[in-house]
Amino acid sequence: MEAPGEAEGAAGLRCRHPVAEMLDLPFLPFCILLGGLGFVCVAFVSAWCQHWRGGFALDGSAQTFNWHPVLMVTGMVVLYGAAALVYRLPPTWSGPKLPWKVLHGTLALAAFVLAVLGLVAVFRFHNDHGTPNMYSLHSWLGLVTVLLFSCQWLAGFSAFLLPWAPAWLRTLYKPVHIFFGSTILMLSVASCMSGINEKLFFSLKNGTTEYKRLPAEAVFANTLGLLILLFGVLVLGALARPSWKRPDADSPDSRQPLLTAER
Amino acid sequence: MEAPGEAEGAAGLRCRHPVAEMLDLPFLPFCILLGGLGFVCVAFVSAWCQHWRGGFALDGSAQTFNWHPVLMVTGMVVLYGAAALVYRLPPTWSGPKLPWKVLHGTLALAAFVLAVLGLVAVFRFHNDHGTPNMYSLHSWLGLVTVLLFSCQWLAGFSAFLLPWAPAWLRTLYKPVHIFFGSTILMLSVASCMSGINEKLFFSLKNGTTEYKRLPAEAVFANTLGLLILLFGVLVLGALARPSWKRPDADSPDSRQPLLTAER
Repeated sequence: MEAPGEAEGAAGLRCRHPVAEMLDLPFLPFCILLGGLGFVCVAFVSAWCQHWRGGFALDGSAQTFNWHPVLMVTGMVVLYGAAALVYRLPPTWSGPKLPWKVLHGTLALAAFVLAVLGLVAVFRFHNDHGTPNMYSLHSWLGLVTVLLFSCQWLAGFSAFLLPWAPAWLRTLYKPVHIFFGSTILMLSVASCMSGINEKLFFSLKNGTTEYKRLPAEAVFANTLGLLILLFGVLVLGALARPSWKRPDADSPDSRQPLLTAER
Repeated sequence: MEAPGEAEGAAGLRCRHPVAEMLDLPFLPFCILLGGLGFVCVAFVSAWCQHWRGGFALDGSAQTFNWHPVLMVTGMVVLYGAAALVYRLPPTWSGPKLPWKVLHGTLALAAFVLAVLGLVAVFRFHNDHGTPNMYSLHSWLGLVTVLLFSCQWLAGFSAFLLPWAPAWLRTLYKPVHIFFGSTILMLSVASCMSGINEKLFFSLKNGTTEYKRLPAEAVFANTLGLLILLFGVLVLGALARPSWKRPDADSPDSRQPLLTAER
């Protein structure tokens, strides 16, 4: 079922000017490009930690810390972005919703597990080095992000996957869930920016490797920051684009049956 | 003129359950609270620079740098947020649009001028101290934000205030302008987070004032960061809330007359 207003609007826009038609990018090619960008983000953060920061370990050393950026970028940005975009896949627009809900929830849960492991890595490193935890604004921001994400996941699971949530509660909570979905991604990106910045100030201190001299590592990690930013903005843009939303998503007449189906 | 779907949706939601009615916060009290929060953000950043960072000057010293955070928070977060919310004021929903467009553009221009002065402050400080400019991820992110904002302002001015933009171009550009409006605010907030974090690592280095010991300044400035974040999220939430949007904003049948009016 299609929201009449939105369908008319899209059709109207297409009819009005050929430029609008030309710019009407289909979702799937965009999705492939975005997947490529997500892969590049994970490859960049891994290469940074492997090539410049000494690789990975589980012994509480600086190499243990290196899991933190890799797991956070992979979980809270790339996997989270994938989870957020599940309902933009055209096959989700018809047929049973339950499998897609399960996929959305599973991807989000995988993102959350990686985030928790990423936190374990940094706490382990701090504790083994006698460094206090949770003092920098980056850590406060990151913890707020992960705590909000845990609330979002639990509330989403309770409202949309458990069978006893009443329809009025789902209807009321759905826009809140959608808004916080975008907000938490924005907070993740902001956390990554402050974290990469902080790590570079910690690591690049001496002589020709000083951060302010912009050595190769600094250019590489700053570029990683901008790539993460681009990934986040593209996901938010895809979520906001009306023609990529499930056509009935905002149609008031179809809200009730959708939300009560498949409990 | 009201979008029928949205009006029905809002009415339907109100009829469905009293909890929805209870949570239906009016815009104006929210706006007053948000204004208060914006004031607190500016007061906090000013107090931080005045009380802990030696106050303000125009002589290229560290006191010159202190204008940077104050001007950026005031311009790119608080004034920018005010500009973004102009069209959520109920009086803008009827009558001539031109005065509100001028107010929106003027507030945004004021925000932009403060941002440029904020950049002048940090470049002046760096140049007078032989510190390179534009090396940290914070600076890259901040510059991207201000550059995007300048494009946004120019494109908005050209499309919506100058008389020769064709209606199809306005129709095509309007959702892009709206999306980048939120995105630039998100980037501003991320820039503030990384900037405050960076400044605290620079400033709090020794003995009991070391950042990791969380002295009073660190708690104060971290709190400032979270307040800025809250302000940004509340503005984005207000922008996303359907019942606070101008009722005709997304109605395809009313798009054409609105956009061609008052050229």
